[in-house]
Amino acid sequence: MELQVTQENINKAFSSVSRVASSRGTLPILSNVLVKTTGNRLSISATNLDIAVTHYIGSKVKNEGSITIPAKLTHDFISSLPTGVVDIKLNDNKLYINTEKFESVINGISSDEFPVMPTINNGKEWHIPSKKLKTSLGQVIGSASSDESRPVLTGVYIYSSENNLFIVATDSYRLAEKTVQEVENEINVLVPASAMQELLRILGDYSGEVVIISDEQQILFKVGEIELVARLIEGSYPDYKKLIPQKFETTAIVKKEDFVNITKVSSLFARESAGSVNIQLNSEDNTISIHSIASQLGENTATADAKIKGQGSITLNSRYILDALSACEGEEIEFSFNGKLEPCVIRNPKKKDYLHIIMPLKS
Amino acid sequence: MELQVTQENINKAFSSVSRVASSRGTLPILSNVLVKTTGNRLSISATNLDIAVTHYIGSKVKNEGSITIPAKLTHDFISSLPTGVVDIKLNDNKLYINTEKFESVINGISSDEFPVMPTINNGKEWHIPSKKLKTSLGQVIGSASSDESRPVLTGVYIYSSENNLFIVATDSYRLAEKTVQEVENEINVLVPASAMQELLRILGDYSGEVVIISDEQQILFKVGEIELVARLIEGSYPDYKKLIPQKFETTAIVKKEDFVNITKVSSLFARESAGSVNIQLNSEDNTISIHSIASQLGENTATADAKIKGQGSITLNSRYILDALSACEGEEIEFSFNGKLEPCVIRNPKKKDYLHIIMPLKS
Repeated sequence: MELQVTQENINKAFSSVSRVASSRGTLPILSNVLVKTTGNRLSISATNLDIAVTHYIGSKVKNEGSITIPAKLTHDFISSLPTGVVDIKLNDNKLYINTEKFESVINGISSDEFPVMPTINNGKEWHIPSKKLKTSLGQVIGSASSDESRPVLTGVYIYSSENNLFIVATDSYRLAEKTVQEVENEINVLVPASAMQELLRILGDYSGEVVIISDEQQILFKVGEIELVARLIEGSYPDYKKLIPQKFETTAIVKKEDFVNITKVSSLFARESAGSVNIQLNSEDNTISIHSIASQLGENTATADAKIKGQGSITLNSRYILDALSACEGEEIEFSFNGKLEPCVIRNPKKKDYLHIIMPLKS
Repeated sequence: MELQVTQENINKAFSSVSRVASSRGTLPILSNVLVKTTGNRLSISATNLDIAVTHYIGSKVKNEGSITIPAKLTHDFISSLPTGVVDIKLNDNKLYINTEKFESVINGISSDEFPVMPTINNGKEWHIPSKKLKTSLGQVIGSASSDESRPVLTGVYIYSSENNLFIVATDSYRLAEKTVQEVENEINVLVPASAMQELLRILGDYSGEVVIISDEQQILFKVGEIELVARLIEGSYPDYKKLIPQKFETTAIVKKEDFVNITKVSSLFARESAGSVNIQLNSEDNTISIHSIASQLGENTATADAKIKGQGSITLNSRYILDALSACEGEEIEFSFNGKLEPCVIRNPKKKDYLHIIMPLKS
């Protein structure tokens, strides 16, 4: 293998893939990336067996070839190089990476020992504008569970119903549902949230269309020159629709900024009680107040103006409220519930494509 | 106690002192701050017994008094409040802190249980412009030791000689010496580096004069409305002057930016060898090159143009080189040594008020 690339391009490729290469796994070679020529392109790939990411860059290839090299060291090295041409040459499993002022030899491991990168044949295909996918995933992904004992809840559920594409996540304490856009092909997949976190990073500022291809086992996201393949989670997603209340006894319309402020202040006094705060909607003076108690340290009541229908109180985890508020678009929030025991709903009153549900705590 | 302050002022005061209040100590009350009226001023104080910091702010005092309250919670709470007037009232060891929309009660502990804040009587006094003190300390403090087994080396040595004020620190592997300015009063104190770190934070953007007052046991720094008192370290400082070489066999003049770049890149390959890199000065082609080897992963040579006198090589810890370079002012660096075994000197060739010495590693 012998080729030339620009520092800018190969650095971008290493930035895309090297997070996936982990040194914590059981297979040491997974902390390497696969560097491989294909025609006049160079591909840099990494996998942790659940996710595989490949970034293709243009390159002047003199001799074809492939090798695997340590992801972290090589990425750190390449990102420290000055911009401009980088000469790369493979000799006896040693990769020589040279510029005018920097010469280095990286000890590689034969690419034969690297896992085969997954491919998808005969899958169905969807197209979603990158910005829309990024916003939607960002609003939902925080509600996925990190508890491996219920694998289904560690996934982001992407499905179509009546020609609409939905993205949903829940950890059983809260749930987020986004209606993304109309789609023609049906889809029904459960993608690991960790893969979607990686996808969010890869989407970055990309403004084109993302191509999604899926078969029964895997899903591929093409983001420009970058491809991410993830293994799907097996199992059927809970029938979450029945959790969503249709009518409410009590509703507040409140400025998001105010709601965030009073929740943040209250949460300071809720550290002992695992974030538990009590929210009171008062229709007489049209206020929403949050009360929290730190038995040792003190207590707090924070109040904001709001338009209130009905009257009542509910006890919630303040961290979940803050997560929900930061996931909602717009300047106003509609906050609704039915008594102390049923889930509350947080949404933008003017843009009903996003819904966030939080289960109450016992008070 | 009953008073009014602005959120801006009391927040500033808590920011100055609350880092010193530690919850890790053995005395629980040291995680509290002392809030106390003195005439029409409010003082907020914290101490860890080695350092004490007090910040005075203006306040409308209706009734005098004092109390201690948890530093972290109260600071977090106050910093979350909107700007404007804050009403503070003490009742039965409970401090009521209220604004229009936020009401809180903080459980306090009587100020009788708080350690007496240290004072200095009959000390000598010095004045140093804040910016000059900040720059000087910043250049030196990184060379102090954190190893408590040799307490003298955990200090920053501030002394006068022939009417010049010097600030020095060494951990025995490297040494930094700054000639600050002329002084009239003699001084010879050893101040804990941790106290000087705190002072650096307090100096912040302050542009006035810092007043320094010292007696045999303690030193006080007055920075505007903030006072920091530190206990001095006992013991005599090593006679470091004899370590400083007076002539050099080998010298390079190199752009600081280039020296930093080649050291950073080399350090990537020096992780296995605890940062050890070999520096070669070559007078034939007027270059400085740094070579490093990671036995498992590979090796690297990074080169920069330089003006070289003499010829030779030395092995150093790359982290110490980077620390030294970031402490040196100016765009050029003079790097000098005598063979592989004697200390090397790094300094600005055009501004000889700062000197940095690094001991070589065996190669």
